[in-house]
Amino acid sequence: MENKIPYKIYLEESELPKSWYNVRADMKTKPAPLLNPATGKPMTLDELSVVFCKELAKQELDNDTAYIAIPEEILDFYKMYRPAPLVRAYFLEKALGTPAKIYYKFEGNNTSGSHKLNSAIAQAYYAKKQGLKGVTTETGAGQWGTALSMACAYFDLDCKVYMVKVSYEQKPFRREVMRTYGAAVTPSPSDTTKVGREILEKFPGTTGSLGCAISEAVEAAVSHEGYRYVLGSVLSQVLLHQSIIGLETMAACDKYDIKPDVIIGCAGGGSNLGGLISPFMGRKLRGEADYKFIAVEPASCPSLTRGKYAYDFCDTGMVCPLAKMYTLGSGFIPSPNHAGGLRYHGMSSVLSELYDEGLIEARSVEQTSVFEAAQYFARVEGTLPAPESSHAIRAAIDEAIKCKETGEEKTILFGLTGTGYFDMVAYQKFNDGVMNDYIPTDDEIAKSLANLPKL
Amino acid sequence: MENKIPYKIYLEESELPKSWYNVRADMKTKPAPLLNPATGKPMTLDELSVVFCKELAKQELDNDTAYIAIPEEILDFYKMYRPAPLVRAYFLEKALGTPAKIYYKFEGNNTSGSHKLNSAIAQAYYAKKQGLKGVTTETGAGQWGTALSMACAYFDLDCKVYMVKVSYEQKPFRREVMRTYGAAVTPSPSDTTKVGREILEKFPGTTGSLGCAISEAVEAAVSHEGYRYVLGSVLSQVLLHQSIIGLETMAACDKYDIKPDVIIGCAGGGSNLGGLISPFMGRKLRGEADYKFIAVEPASCPSLTRGKYAYDFCDTGMVCPLAKMYTLGSGFIPSPNHAGGLRYHGMSSVLSELYDEGLIEARSVEQTSVFEAAQYFARVEGTLPAPESSHAIRAAIDEAIKCKETGEEKTILFGLTGTGYFDMVAYQKFNDGVMNDYIPTDDEIAKSLANLPKL
Repeated sequence: MENKIPYKIYLEESELPKSWYNVRADMKTKPAPLLNPATGKPMTLDELSVVFCKELAKQELDNDTAYIAIPEEILDFYKMYRPAPLVRAYFLEKALGTPAKIYYKFEGNNTSGSHKLNSAIAQAYYAKKQGLKGVTTETGAGQWGTALSMACAYFDLDCKVYMVKVSYEQKPFRREVMRTYGAAVTPSPSDTTKVGREILEKFPGTTGSLGCAISEAVEAAVSHEGYRYVLGSVLSQVLLHQSIIGLETMAACDKYDIKPDVIIGCAGGGSNLGGLISPFMGRKLRGEADYKFIAVEPASCPSLTRGKYAYDFCDTGMVCPLAKMYTLGSGFIPSPNHAGGLRYHGMSSVLSELYDEGLIEARSVEQTSVFEAAQYFARVEGTLPAPESSHAIRAAIDEAIKCKETGEEKTILFGLTGTGYFDMVAYQKFNDGVMNDYIPTDDEIAKSLANLPKL
Repeated sequence: MENKIPYKIYLEESELPKSWYNVRADMKTKPAPLLNPATGKPMTLDELSVVFCKELAKQELDNDTAYIAIPEEILDFYKMYRPAPLVRAYFLEKALGTPAKIYYKFEGNNTSGSHKLNSAIAQAYYAKKQGLKGVTTETGAGQWGTALSMACAYFDLDCKVYMVKVSYEQKPFRREVMRTYGAAVTPSPSDTTKVGREILEKFPGTTGSLGCAISEAVEAAVSHEGYRYVLGSVLSQVLLHQSIIGLETMAACDKYDIKPDVIIGCAGGGSNLGGLISPFMGRKLRGEADYKFIAVEPASCPSLTRGKYAYDFCDTGMVCPLAKMYTLGSGFIPSPNHAGGLRYHGMSSVLSELYDEGLIEARSVEQTSVFEAAQYFARVEGTLPAPESSHAIRAAIDEAIKCKETGEEKTILFGLTGTGYFDMVAYQKFNDGVMNDYIPTDDEIAKSLANLPKL
């Protein structure tokens, strides 16, 4: 195989982005502001700064600055594991017999196993700069918690992680990675917080959810001096940091004259999808280019495809600000059958607004077909993907097969957010043929949506 | 941090080696030949071809050809996960406050998690080319088995893996990775082979060893039509394939004018160490340059530092040819306390000869200090290392600290063979403070060595 475009494109260190890109600056309709649940008014910088580091609160509220310089210390850390390669999936194309050209941006070549480290190091940096003792957070599949524990170890910050109970039990090894990096890990819901105790009382035996874990982590932050809460997805600041994915991808595409027609990402809270598509969406919003964007979510937690665009709580305990987003209701607890980390009831406000304007498409996929794609990809392309990432693989393969049928030579780009090395319990279920698909009923979703906050 | 030498050096695709380098060609005293245990005479090509693929048997016997072209199909596969980066350990240097310059060749960025894939794909390729149905093998920590299952999936070969029982139990997730790639995995010793049943009868409750698993895999190969046995270390053919590590490293060093003074690798059977140092050793043997080479082995299985240079069986069941090597005796079963994969009783004949001639130094390190180095490295350099690789990290850190004391600005290069993502049971023991060091007594070793074959 002699190819003009190498199998893997690594940018030179000198070509790495020096600023993050804030897609909100190019959006005509800005994402709706976070609201104070007590007053119903937009959260102020001062109010947000009780929960978040001040600099991050500023980034959260900044809808206007298109490029924000990445601090030198963060650029240094990025050099540990970036650039991430843009991979031409020659083997996958050949196996599928498709005329499509397939590329993926692979974010899994670091110990956190995913793109989450891009924002973790930024949030840890600002916490350190503010002189804090430590941070609290939640984690679902464990990727975010691992990333944060690595970032906190680097800046010598204390790190308290509330881990969704089902993942804590299914992924004990993730916990050990976090402990190796010095983090304290608690299964959520727990009896260490007021909100955790309330949830346990109301739903005994619950396997938890990101929404519960967020409530506990926020409570732990505001009730400990010198701590702030950090979040790995959903927030606009996280999409900002994750724009490094899209910026690197775009630089590699421009360098090799690659013009993607379709850009695909898995969507839980939106951090990866938002980060990957941001700069491309910027071009689209400025009328410089056009792309078809596809958000892929699990059929078991379909916030975009079956949720409602409305203000909702970000967490089950209702302690966080209200966000306008596509949501299944903050009380929605996805089936524990679902193996991936895309179990959040809502979706980034930025992506929700773009989706509502028709600038992004969305589809949901079922778990078994996701693992079929994952196994196929592992065997053909060599990398065992994370279940989350495999939602994007599923859609990319489906698009490539469509090209085979129509003969179209489309260029398909997707985000391979991470590796599945800590997801072998799920793979084992798949290997043993005992994996279940689960799709919530209309009634279940309607019941959950009935509890949206009244404004 | 602005540096002339980037944090990570990735060669261009066009700069990748096109041939393997066979260090035996430059050795004045060749490694002693494999002997037929029945006749006591050197194994012939025909005899070896009963167990190994013919082309691999040829490579095993070839002490003269310095460069062997890598087949195109293997070069293609290498592009999936190579080049492996040569990393400048800026963060580690800074944390240690050492004047030394530290580099490591990182082989962990692939799903097998280690360098083992370099030889697995070569061995699978020659098996396919010979028209075989499949291959059998043993695996210790599971890295080799995973690598082979990936390689077999790529060439659509059947793959039977005998996995050392202690690892099978400590690392169930490795088994699932292998199954995801379609391999059949059996804990060893097992009742599926004659030799396995004999070992079980003689040592009921044994947790197994590489030596046992090799015997079972060889028996499975020769008793199934269309199968051959493949081995992930020790053999000269494996060192040949693994020379890709050293060749890439040398190309990167030459490109950036990096001149290593000390080259360090962990040593179990010798595949990584041999692969890393081969081309550098070639230069040394040809009088073109000088390097200090250090083999680092576990104190629990110290074949170089406490073994004997003699002909011995390669396997516990004594079904394999005899090899002259540094050995602890083929009956030596390392303590199950030891977490790493460096549990083989012998050492590559090539490395044994070089060590015997004083061209390589060796040292052994204890498990707790290895994990201390591992955790330190993980926090400072970001990558959670495999326990095996961490033996080399321990020695590299020790060398760098010596430089700090003496003020010497040495250039230290070590092999980071893989990641520890499937070794979290061991990390958990370390995190919980319940890890044990184990050093065999002189009596234990003498007793095991008393059973060397009489020639």
